[in-house]
Amino acid sequence: MNGAIALDRIRIVLSRTSHPGNIGAAARAMKTMGLSRLYLVAPSAFPDPVADARASGATDVLESACVVDSLDEALHGTILSAAITARRRERSVPVRSAREAAPELVAFAEKGDVALVFGTEMSGLTNDEVERCSMPVSIPANPAFSSLNLGAAVQLLCYELRMAALSPTPPAEPLPDLATFEEIEGFHRHLERAMTASGFYDPANPKRLLQRLRRLFGRVRLEKEEVNILRGIVGALERKPD
Amino acid sequence: MNGAIALDRIRIVLSRTSHPGNIGAAARAMKTMGLSRLYLVAPSAFPDPVADARASGATDVLESACVVDSLDEALHGTILSAAITARRRERSVPVRSAREAAPELVAFAEKGDVALVFGTEMSGLTNDEVERCSMPVSIPANPAFSSLNLGAAVQLLCYELRMAALSPTPPAEPLPDLATFEEIEGFHRHLERAMTASGFYDPANPKRLLQRLRRLFGRVRLEKEEVNILRGIVGALERKPD
Repeated sequence: MNGAIALDRIRIVLSRTSHPGNIGAAARAMKTMGLSRLYLVAPSAFPDPVADARASGATDVLESACVVDSLDEALHGTILSAAITARRRERSVPVRSAREAAPELVAFAEKGDVALVFGTEMSGLTNDEVERCSMPVSIPANPAFSSLNLGAAVQLLCYELRMAALSPTPPAEPLPDLATFEEIEGFHRHLERAMTASGFYDPANPKRLLQRLRRLFGRVRLEKEEVNILRGIVGALERKPD
Repeated sequence: MNGAIALDRIRIVLSRTSHPGNIGAAARAMKTMGLSRLYLVAPSAFPDPVADARASGATDVLESACVVDSLDEALHGTILSAAITARRRERSVPVRSAREAAPELVAFAEKGDVALVFGTEMSGLTNDEVERCSMPVSIPANPAFSSLNLGAAVQLLCYELRMAALSPTPPAEPLPDLATFEEIEGFHRHLERAMTASGFYDPANPKRLLQRLRRLFGRVRLEKEEVNILRGIVGALERKPD
């Protein structure tokens, strides 16, 4: 199964997890579905014996986990990332279901690193965290009680990834060569500088311009070469001769 | 949704569960997916404060749980039952996957009571228990580590039931206010002028720049307001003060 390689390239990122038991449950859930790469952003307690106990045989996943300070570090080097959210809409961006998103996530994982990002037990991901990811993804749940346990949510997503990897539907056309997270961040910073210098963007009165642009370019799945073109345009306009 | 009625008629049967925490986790998992009917066959400890804590808001499911002495009692009145097993074959009966089985389980639940039966944390269901059920069902898992947590297994099965009950998919969400063809054309012409004036684009040596940009912005399905923002940026950069 080729999909096994893809699964092994998918990062599960847990942001600011409060309870080490949930980290252990996530590790076990990952391993049952053939995933191994766990990233922990500023966990409250890790390593922790409670995490080891709940991992129940998946301690290798815990031992190789990467503990980082920020979501940006966890996303460094990825070409696609999914923010797992219970909301049905994220700032007017349509949210795809886990089942809809899984085949695409697996397909891109054959080309580069892919991440699934989970927020805290109490409040999930912040708006800023969601906006740093390529797309929001949700688990269809009972609208009257949609509060999944964190370990259970990781289990469901990893299951959908495994199901997609086991029966890969070959993409219609060759997959594009997507820009990495940091290449896209570099473009956003460059554009912000140019907009500020030109007077179009006023940091003292930002309205929602930067978020709007993130939303636009997040939706498009920028390719490497496209980021280069866009930065070239912005750079040329910045230097425009009189 | 008609499927909601079906989900409410599906029993989750936990046989001889050792840890009350898993009973609580199962109750929470059920409720997140719209199930409510929990049957406990000879649990080691129930009721139990650990179960209440792990149920986390699904205590109504625990409070209405039926505690019985034997699997036969739990299956009384059902028209179909699935034995959840990690084995790939059960006494030469082919085992169906959760995804294959879910639509049939939901369809029958519109006609009568249906049960899903889960065994103990350590050893699952006995052969005798499997044989008392209508069919064996398994969760596709990593062959090298197929040991799902009981609560996680209940979560996955209830999720598959909900997905089957929700299908066909509910109507799409409200469509965004997309830019018209001519608004997008206006943007492309504007961008071309600005790129030419800045020297970034040379009409005498166009390469494929314009096509690349059309491809990029064609893919994104630009909204009206986004075209206005993009034209605002280009205009401001064109006029950039020295």
